[in-house]
Amino acid sequence: MKIVLLGYGNVAQQLVRAFLQSEEVEVVQIYNRTPISQPPISHCTTALSELKQADVYIIALPDDVIGEFSDQLPFENRLVVHTSGSVSMEQLLDKNRRGVFYPLQTFSKERAIEMQTVPICLEAEFEKDFEVLKELGGCISEKIVEINSEKRRKLHLAAVYVNNFTNHLYRISEEITETESLDFALLKPLIFETAKKMDTLTPSEAQTGPAKRKDVKTIENHLQQLNEVQENGSLDPSAAQLYELFTKSILNTYHGKKL
Amino acid sequence: MKIVLLGYGNVAQQLVRAFLQSEEVEVVQIYNRTPISQPPISHCTTALSELKQADVYIIALPDDVIGEFSDQLPFENRLVVHTSGSVSMEQLLDKNRRGVFYPLQTFSKERAIEMQTVPICLEAEFEKDFEVLKELGGCISEKIVEINSEKRRKLHLAAVYVNNFTNHLYRISEEITETESLDFALLKPLIFETAKKMDTLTPSEAQTGPAKRKDVKTIENHLQQLNEVQENGSLDPSAAQLYELFTKSILNTYHGKKL
Repeated sequence: MKIVLLGYGNVAQQLVRAFLQSEEVEVVQIYNRTPISQPPISHCTTALSELKQADVYIIALPDDVIGEFSDQLPFENRLVVHTSGSVSMEQLLDKNRRGVFYPLQTFSKERAIEMQTVPICLEAEFEKDFEVLKELGGCISEKIVEINSEKRRKLHLAAVYVNNFTNHLYRISEEITETESLDFALLKPLIFETAKKMDTLTPSEAQTGPAKRKDVKTIENHLQQLNEVQENGSLDPSAAQLYELFTKSILNTYHGKKL
Repeated sequence: MKIVLLGYGNVAQQLVRAFLQSEEVEVVQIYNRTPISQPPISHCTTALSELKQADVYIIALPDDVIGEFSDQLPFENRLVVHTSGSVSMEQLLDKNRRGVFYPLQTFSKERAIEMQTVPICLEAEFEKDFEVLKELGGCISEKIVEINSEKRRKLHLAAVYVNNFTNHLYRISEEITETESLDFALLKPLIFETAKKMDTLTPSEAQTGPAKRKDVKTIENHLQQLNEVQENGSLDPSAAQLYELFTKSILNTYHGKKL
């Protein structure tokens, strides 16, 4: 199966790495607006006019340029997909056959992802194209799922909570430890175990802490601690607001307190 | 080194399991208010009057009963520690030599914890007792740190963010996926990778998402999605409030927006 990658950001780089490990997939070309400094294959281009023939064209670009970029493709009736969680399939121009190839994971340059475990969420306008995407996805991942644009957006929203917001909680903890001259690394085994618990427990089963226990004394003590940390450094005021809102939300979830 | 465990909840059970694997530690007795159904050692008691001689007495009981319980111990001038992150050492009655043995981890009955990687935070009134606790901690963990009551409280507060609050974010995601008939398991590789990133990146380096990118269009789209999920099911209203507060906080952190 021949594919062309359009864009070479974090997602594209991890996809190319995975595709190159598969014998069934040939990455015939990578397009990027600017020259790629360390290209993983020799056939790279910065000119859309030079795009080669392929079975699937994968647009891995920022959400806000996907639609416009698909307009500029100098061909018709080929299979063109994007990799975004929050952009609908319909935002691709319909002169080509459209689809979505969304790997549900967080990608950063510094970390190689084992793509085998990453769910690939697929959507296609036409049944035969869906089969092509399924085959392509199956070359790099064990987890292939069909999800339409409407559901994919919801999944992406849920992903923001467990990834972006969770990471921001790590950041707040880091601020607390730094302000108090404590080592943030002390929290890492806890961070890992909190995630690993999801292997065997539901979030409700795994929930612990003062709000879950309705332990008002400890909650008040924590709010006092937050004040002290704020006085000792530059903790963002939203840290305390988040403490209160989480506490309300957990109380509401497990003790039926109305907000 | 001889120890007696006082209480047999999640923390005590994991500690006993770890101590029993160490050749240098002898768990001479476990006290519990009610009989233990599957005792890991034969010497268990429900009577404080039957407590045996030991080098360290470890109170592993809920925060709000630790002080009162320490009053009831029928001996003096022995080394008595508690295992709590948020209770100060001074809440133990001073008729005994006091200390703290706080394993910084989340413990649940269902999951065996590898204690070797768990930081054990120690505090003691007397230097020689600190050395005893250091030796005891070293028998089960590679990570022993001295942390006083004031700092330990701050560490415990930081732990609430990365554990209790993070887990509640998992719960909200689960509610979103359940309402939309999506499989929560699709998010698990993302949950694990979000945590694992802390191995090699700081929280700031790892932060991604619409608020970090200042991508107002996606943020508005997500708030609209949240409305739809709320209409489709019984999503707690605090989910949307948390979305807004996190977004403000991330914008403030990375783009200097005032709240």
